[in-house]
Amino acid sequence: MTHFADRLSAACRDRGNALCVGLDPRWDALPDSLRARHADGTLAGVARAFEDFCLRVVDLVAPLVPVVKPQSAFFEMCGPEGMLALQRVLRRATARGLLTVLDGKRNDIASTAAAYADAAFAGVTIDGATHPVWDADALTVNPYLGRDAVEPFLRSARRSGKGVFVLVRTSNPGARQFQDLDCGGKPLFLHVAEAVRSWARESVGGCGLGDAGAVVGATYPAELAALRAAMPEVPFLVPGYGAQGGGAADVAAAFRPDGSGAVVSSSRGITCAFAPDEPAWEDFVEGATRLAIADLARR
Amino acid sequence: MTHFADRLSAACRDRGNALCVGLDPRWDALPDSLRARHADGTLAGVARAFEDFCLRVVDLVAPLVPVVKPQSAFFEMCGPEGMLALQRVLRRATARGLLTVLDGKRNDIASTAAAYADAAFAGVTIDGATHPVWDADALTVNPYLGRDAVEPFLRSARRSGKGVFVLVRTSNPGARQFQDLDCGGKPLFLHVAEAVRSWARESVGGCGLGDAGAVVGATYPAELAALRAAMPEVPFLVPGYGAQGGGAADVAAAFRPDGSGAVVSSSRGITCAFAPDEPAWEDFVEGATRLAIADLARR
Repeated sequence: MTHFADRLSAACRDRGNALCVGLDPRWDALPDSLRARHADGTLAGVARAFEDFCLRVVDLVAPLVPVVKPQSAFFEMCGPEGMLALQRVLRRATARGLLTVLDGKRNDIASTAAAYADAAFAGVTIDGATHPVWDADALTVNPYLGRDAVEPFLRSARRSGKGVFVLVRTSNPGARQFQDLDCGGKPLFLHVAEAVRSWARESVGGCGLGDAGAVVGATYPAELAALRAAMPEVPFLVPGYGAQGGGAADVAAAFRPDGSGAVVSSSRGITCAFAPDEPAWEDFVEGATRLAIADLARR
Repeated sequence: MTHFADRLSAACRDRGNALCVGLDPRWDALPDSLRARHADGTLAGVARAFEDFCLRVVDLVAPLVPVVKPQSAFFEMCGPEGMLALQRVLRRATARGLLTVLDGKRNDIASTAAAYADAAFAGVTIDGATHPVWDADALTVNPYLGRDAVEPFLRSARRSGKGVFVLVRTSNPGARQFQDLDCGGKPLFLHVAEAVRSWARESVGGCGLGDAGAVVGATYPAELAALRAAMPEVPFLVPGYGAQGGGAADVAAAFRPDGSGAVVSSSRGITCAFAPDEPAWEDFVEGATRLAIADLARR
């Protein structure tokens, strides 16, 4: 079983970039052709359209990027059929050689967190048989409940060569409200960062990075540099690139001196880069992906 | 449209108690008879057993208590079929006159949070038609991302007479790690409490309580009293009663002087109060519910 961080590093090396394509399907931004094919006035139809769209995006970007990140909220929004679409999208991405980050920001007390974690990672064991559910390579996790609530995610991930990305500094404008509160001379997010570093150091791969990662928004470049210094062994997942305003120069600080240690995620900039009535929308997705890769290389 | 807090207060008054029954189905704790009926070596079978069990519990407790709280993790654990079971359990509870708290601890940046929120509350609008998804009366929400990330949950809840319960002080042993960090002379959880109070005061019902509530664990009685004083207009959801160690005396401080203002949740103490081979397990669920109500009345 290969360590999560080694798999992540190898995937970035193979593709020659660290771009993660976010899969955040939105009905109003889907190609007209897909909406026309699936619209039947039900959420099941919306779920099928999301699945169809995301499977095509996965096929398009699989040769180009190392990682995709489905956002669970948009699938959950469609109810049970949406979760079936999510499962199929995750499976296709894995089959195409992509690493998958399930963006669920899950969190709960220990016994309940274990249910989320086994669904995401190691599989759910019933009467001695283990059943995969989401089978993602990584899951985003919210740290507010503390270590004992993050522990089941780490445990399940470690049983299966997978990883967690803990929210440290989120990309939204209001992130400062609690994350910047001064706790004994240091903002809260730095306390969380130090905890994540200690968790990462419990299980470090050959590449020098751990399997406990950090979510650090591209929209706060100064904090990004401070956090890279504070967490040298921690892989970063950097959202907020592109549509949310973060640029290549902003994310440069997320990487280690050797260029490893971070994946940068773009969602709307890639999957909403075309007009809904654009018949050649797949060319636009591929073009936007190549542009983002080139932009990121100029950091 | 009746305000969420008024509906909650009326439901507690009608039933004469403030007990919330947590629906946290666990395969190994289900009655043998239900496992035998549904076990087919698939998670779909587990999901059907969870649904069967929870529907019976809902029917049993509906005449006795005001609120049930399904834990989304245990349904998500079974994949798409589990989410279908969750949807059916929520529908049955609403049909039986119970208020429902979906315990999902959801959180994300604004545009994504809106997807979770509309699924939970107001329904998902596609091409001008609105589709209910979970249609819960309340959802638990994690505050780490700050106000702009909680805002979509409040907005969707307020459109539909529903409410949010924001994690303030969780019931797990490790809650202190971040929640107790001293931020300018006050622990983090008190900063969160003050924010929740300000959100609750934006929309107060006739009963004097708002539609932004707080999750405050029964396992920290001293904090419970401080938080009740800090948040007079905020309804409390108090987990950790029973199996996690909180007793009736511990939760007394959660209530306002007139006895309103809190619902106290017990999960395992009610739904795992029987041996799996107990044929009269439904009597045990009903008995455990009546005992918890009587115990709570002695607070």
